[in-house]
Amino acid sequence: MAHAEAAGIMTGDPMIGSDRVEGTTVYDPSGNDIGKIKRLMIEKMSGRVTYAVMSFGGFLGMGEEEHTIPWNKLNYDTTLGGYRTDITEEQLKGAPSFYREDDYRWSDRDRERELHDYWRAPYYWGM
Amino acid sequence: MAHAEAAGIMTGDPMIGSDRVEGTTVYDPSGNDIGKIKRLMIEKMSGRVTYAVMSFGGFLGMGEEEHTIPWNKLNYDTTLGGYRTDITEEQLKGAPSFYREDDYRWSDRDRERELHDYWRAPYYWGM
Repeated sequence: MAHAEAAGIMTGDPMIGSDRVEGTTVYDPSGNDIGKIKRLMIEKMSGRVTYAVMSFGGFLGMGEEEHTIPWNKLNYDTTLGGYRTDITEEQLKGAPSFYREDDYRWSDRDRERELHDYWRAPYYWGM
Repeated sequence: MAHAEAAGIMTGDPMIGSDRVEGTTVYDPSGNDIGKIKRLMIEKMSGRVTYAVMSFGGFLGMGEEEHTIPWNKLNYDTTLGGYRTDITEEQLKGAPSFYREDDYRWSDRDRERELHDYWRAPYYWGM
């Protein structure tokens, strides 16, 4: 829904390989490189991509950090050849530390709700 | 729907990382190793996993072959630590050659319908 295609940026191919998404650069609204996608999180039952685990580097002027970002915060931009997000430096700085765990385990919906609320993203469930 | 969880095989973690799925072994109903997952295909707009591109090896007694399989043909089996499928050797041998292309481009729904019908898989769209 929030994806590139919905914004009118449509490539010919509606599909993308998981190994092509991993390592893809993510840009801020001004087109600055702010990080990379490390992996996608997939809901086993439904087969939906729910989150992207991203590494953020120089953007914060500190060591590399990982964050789990709702997938619908990323929009593919064909001109950049990467994803664009409206996540801000302030949001990253203020994010609770448990969002930064590499192997975050999703055990309850409340925590997912909290995470989506924090990033101001629509819930992926019940959509 | 057709996934392991629906069949009562449920791990504690409802999510799996894309890099963990790639390289995972796929077993036939008797528990024989028949191939591996190379990559997942993801529908950009919806963020749904739609297909797994798999490599099949010794199963066919011929060179390694790639096939694009509807995602819902794979069920995660925690005891095997891999996916189980009911795809048969006969189905693989009879599959049209264009299903074996590495970089198959999904341009029209008719071809996808044909592929799902061939593998006797429910369509992922409109579900």
